[in-house]
Amino acid sequence: MKLALIGAGRIGRVHALSIAAHPEVTLAAVVDAYPEAAETLARDFGSRARDIDDVFEDPEIDAVLIASSTATHIDYLERAASAGKAMLCEKPIALDLAASRATAERVAQSLCALAFNRRHDPQFSALKDQLGQGRIGKLETLAITSRDPEPPPLEYVKGSGGLFRDMMIHDFDMARWLLDEPIVSVYASGSCLVDPAIGEAGDVDSAVVVMKTASGRLCTISNSRRAVYGYDQRIEAFGSEGMLQAQNECDTRLKFVGKQGQLEEAPRWFFLERYAEAYRRELDDFYQSWREGRAPRAGITDGVEALRLAEAADISRREGRTVYVEEV
Amino acid sequence: MKLALIGAGRIGRVHALSIAAHPEVTLAAVVDAYPEAAETLARDFGSRARDIDDVFEDPEIDAVLIASSTATHIDYLERAASAGKAMLCEKPIALDLAASRATAERVAQSLCALAFNRRHDPQFSALKDQLGQGRIGKLETLAITSRDPEPPPLEYVKGSGGLFRDMMIHDFDMARWLLDEPIVSVYASGSCLVDPAIGEAGDVDSAVVVMKTASGRLCTISNSRRAVYGYDQRIEAFGSEGMLQAQNECDTRLKFVGKQGQLEEAPRWFFLERYAEAYRRELDDFYQSWREGRAPRAGITDGVEALRLAEAADISRREGRTVYVEEV
Amino acid sequence: MKLALIGAGRIGRVHALSIAAHPEVTLAAVVDAYPEAAETLARDFGSRARDIDDVFEDPEIDAVLIASSTATHIDYLERAASAGKAMLCEKPIALDLAASRATAERVAQSLCALAFNRRHDPQFSALKDQLGQGRIGKLETLAITSRDPEPPPLEYVKGSGGLFRDMMIHDFDMARWLLDEPIVSVYASGSCLVDPAIGEAGDVDSAVVVMKTASGRLCTISNSRRAVYGYDQRIEAFGSEGMLQAQNECDTRLKFVGKQGQLEEAPRWFFLERYAEAYRRELDDFYQSWREGRAPRAGITDGVEALRLAEAADISRREGRTVYVEEV
Amino acid sequence: MKLALIGAGRIGRVHALSIAAHPEVTLAAVVDAYPEAAETLARDFGSRARDIDDVFEDPEIDAVLIASSTATHIDYLERAASAGKAMLCEKPIALDLAASRATAERVAQSLCALAFNRRHDPQFSALKDQLGQGRIGKLETLAITSRDPEPPPLEYVKGSGGLFRDMMIHDFDMARWLLDEPIVSVYASGSCLVDPAIGEAGDVDSAVVVMKTASGRLCTISNSRRAVYGYDQRIEAFGSEGMLQAQNECDTRLKFVGKQGQLEEAPRWFFLERYAEAYRRELDDFYQSWREGRAPRAGITDGVEALRLAEAADISRREGRTVYVEEV
Repeated sequence: MKLALIGAGRIGRVHALSIAAHPEVTLAAVVDAYPEAAETLARDFGSRARDIDDVFEDPEIDAVLIASSTATHIDYLERAASAGKAMLCEKPIALDLAASRATAERVAQSLCALAFNRRHDPQFSALKDQLGQGRIGKLETLAITSRDPEPPPLEYVKGSGGLFRDMMIHDFDMARWLLDEPIVSVYASGSCLVDPAIGEAGDVDSAVVVMKTASGRLCTISNSRRAVYGYDQRIEAFGSEGMLQAQNECDTRLKFVGKQGQLEEAPRWFFLERYAEAYRRELDDFYQSWREGRAPRAGITDGVEALRLAEAADISRREGRTVYVEEV
Repeated sequence: MKLALIGAGRIGRVHALSIAAHPEVTLAAVVDAYPEAAETLARDFGSRARDIDDVFEDPEIDAVLIASSTATHIDYLERAASAGKAMLCEKPIALDLAASRATAERVAQSLCALAFNRRHDPQFSALKDQLGQGRIGKLETLAITSRDPEPPPLEYVKGSGGLFRDMMIHDFDMARWLLDEPIVSVYASGSCLVDPAIGEAGDVDSAVVVMKTASGRLCTISNSRRAVYGYDQRIEAFGSEGMLQAQNECDTRLKFVGKQGQLEEAPRWFFLERYAEAYRRELDDFYQSWREGRAPRAGITDGVEALRLAEAADISRREGRTVYVEEV
Repeated sequence: MKLALIGAGRIGRVHALSIAAHPEVTLAAVVDAYPEAAETLARDFGSRARDIDDVFEDPEIDAVLIASSTATHIDYLERAASAGKAMLCEKPIALDLAASRATAERVAQSLCALAFNRRHDPQFSALKDQLGQGRIGKLETLAITSRDPEPPPLEYVKGSGGLFRDMMIHDFDMARWLLDEPIVSVYASGSCLVDPAIGEAGDVDSAVVVMKTASGRLCTISNSRRAVYGYDQRIEAFGSEGMLQAQNECDTRLKFVGKQGQLEEAPRWFFLERYAEAYRRELDDFYQSWREGRAPRAGITDGVEALRLAEAADISRREGRTVYVEEV
Repeated sequence: MKLALIGAGRIGRVHALSIAAHPEVTLAAVVDAYPEAAETLARDFGSRARDIDDVFEDPEIDAVLIASSTATHIDYLERAASAGKAMLCEKPIALDLAASRATAERVAQSLCALAFNRRHDPQFSALKDQLGQGRIGKLETLAITSRDPEPPPLEYVKGSGGLFRDMMIHDFDMARWLLDEPIVSVYASGSCLVDPAIGEAGDVDSAVVVMKTASGRLCTISNSRRAVYGYDQRIEAFGSEGMLQAQNECDTRLKFVGKQGQLEEAPRWFFLERYAEAYRRELDDFYQSWREGRAPRAGITDGVEALRLAEAADISRREGRTVYVEEV
């Protein structure tokens, strides 16, 4: 697969690493609004910087990986679809639900994977598999904890669409994937406890969401923009026959026992370390989907549905009431 | 302290054990609506069965421990207060908030401890202490998980006032105690996932609550009437400098490593084993309050306030909206 | 059972607590070489100080608990046996193997329990039970780690008979109990790493022993007189179907997660906390043996055999060779 | 670095994977006594099969990785040294100590790394670093547990030089590396508990070793050829200020809590999974040594010294006595 990477920023570089490690995928081009950025990354990974139009027109390019700024996603998705490229797009599709829906419809005939990287994490995959095998009987309650080590720059927060669309979007997707039945209602509560500037920008930095599915399953999501001990990524699934807990991961299992107690390492610091393997598997899933003509693990409609839950959460937080997903 | 135990049922027997183990408290009388029950328990613990009126009139009796059915609490509290006895009363005061409030006012001049046993648990006490010492900086999010091993008999459920008043009442109290500032709003969602008969009786068996405090702290409570692995009692406090986790306790730390993995014991099965030490400390706190003329760790107004949150949760669940505590 | 406690020192007080908590055992007398010590302890536990001769002559006394200095054990055991008392004796019987053997023979017709308290620990008992049930198939290797928090006073060390007789004696007994077949050979190596004064007194403070049983099972014991994190008491049993690990115990399971990592409590500090329940069960086992006319969990011959292994270890350390138990 | 891989068996393939993943090392040739084996591996990794003489004569080849059968090591090492190649050699150098010493002397002027892969494991490296930083004060006792999941084929055992030279050699090296001072004495005890055929072949399958260093540090090593739960690789370092424990590693931290208890995954099954990262780092250390002209983390004299301890252990086991390393 000859793949063009659109976006040479931090997340673009993460994907470039996965591409370099994949035996069947070649980084055929790097595109960025800042040509120097594209050139630097291209040089580091033995590829070349190219123009966006060039890439869409080149029949040799099989696929594009869209990791540019959110505002460009819709345009690039639609152009890539027209050009007959397979697409792997970073989340979110867009900040606007209606526009996302329209795009999803327009690219419906193409292979369009969405980069919900956590679905590819070995531990969460194992959790999903065991739920499917009935390890805990019938799933009843799902609790997702997701905390970033540090808040992003304030400028980023302002353009992010807010915590629900930018950060909790991953957890909404994880909830949908694991609950495995329609989510019917959403309630959200949030506070600004980490940085008052985030509140002044109209956003929250700490939030809790409660959702209910068609059969009455309950799901909570807890987010914070700051956890001093690192990237806190845990999931607890409770059911009629037991409980599964995905625990935080550390670099090593070295334990120190001293006067002050028994000390193990802090969780991995951020998503690059925590989800390195997930990024590799995500690319491979995209490649296999393309090769086998099957659907990817997460597709563009999953992006739309996660955004819909984020929208519902936003309304709920403002109105202090249960929001039914069908309203949105 | 000469103490009369009112109520010779299961929980009465738990208290009798603590009384027997306390060097300064004597079980001076046992009272029960069923005289045989009182006699059996009195015989087992070297005490004697007596009439309720007798107990209130006897100037030798210093204190009463009210562990009879909920419907009797208000009457016994008020009579005990009139008779000048110190009181340790099982939760809830009553199922009706207004009546509970009225009673709390009437006995306000007496020593009246409420049996929120979990406040006396060594692990939760240590958690509270460390919060007070600033171990995690400023508290931001509190998550309480509380699951019973098995649902109570259906008849019990019907008269219990519902999951929020009967079971989650402990968690409301724990939340109030740990959050350490006024709770201003409550949202509740519940389902019947364990036993349809509970739903037919108008109650839920699985529930999630989200609360917010005056300064914006967020608190979730998750309850289930059934956890096949035992009594699931965990608390996670998250703050600006870290996280404290009160984990489930087991009888031993023996670990088996075999083909299927690394296996440690299931959590203790039920409250008798899990909170045995808490019951002993609760009685001692009551005794020390009486001896030193100080307030007990949990008093009757704590019982009123926990019931108020339960009432708010009930309204929220029915109306699908945030309920402000001041409404109740 | 009317029991006289001989020895009102630290370990005597531990036993007095267990006696006070046992519903069927009465502390009928306290004896000590220092009458004031006996009187203080007797007063604290509602008993009375008496003379040693008095105790042996009093037909009302059913049993004696010998917790006096090691040098007195043999005399008291033999007099107690003559007087028809049941005996629970602290370890070691004596520092001299031949004398211990002779005494064991002389009291062979009496109930004589030896205070190997660890056999009564709930966790080690569960380990023993699971070995018996074949949980790990055939036992192949046993590894015992046993470290004190701090060295005893130097004067104590000088009169203790050395690390193998004083400290490792418990581990020799544990090894015999768990290996469940004759130990045929012993090798010992030791160093003085904690306090040079212990070395100057002719003893070691750090030691490792390797033993082999008749069928070839291997057992290691590792001792240190000092572990800054507390009382380190672990056992690992490895077999054809898996491994059992008895882990250190802590007061609570409270966990702190912060910048520096994930911190759980240090192990319990010393034997009083770690083995409190074991001491209670040991007394109850003694009482039940007496009442039912059965053998106690650890008897006087177990004391002789553990001392024999200590003797073999001492020879091995001096001679740098495998010592066969039959040599000793 | 242009590298020739000598030996296309199981371990050769492990190294080929690391070479493929290293950006600066090229697999320039594959050599094997069975030309088809060399060709298959060469094809899989985009290299070519070549003759051994060819490789030594080719001035383009910078280095050889010797992963052929033990009997060939000495010849290849000496020829590679003569040809001016850098060498990374699998352990052991040879089964014969004198021959190994002679070879080590002959290649002393060349870069000759020995493949003690465990020194490169991230967890053991972190342990080594923390010892160096004084995390546990002065090291006093080291305990190494090392168990294979299953015994190798009997034919392999027969030619392996025995458990001490073939399996425990890694632990002897780890002990030398971590103890960081001369080991002066060795005692070994072993049994045949896993498979009687191993005993009939004159070897043991379960063994324990005790060593002492110049300053009196004590070290135990425990080996078994079979652990049903997987590859058991643990190290415990105990010192004046605490303890460090390198624990077994699992694929994920997913935990199941059910009726039977709290279950985490079994340790990784074998060395390929457990030490995958160590193999990558080992190759990189070899490359960096070559590039920078510095000594590798483990060199040929480390191989000689580990073999010397194995020899001492063999003598000790046969003679039942402490063997001083200077004797060997």
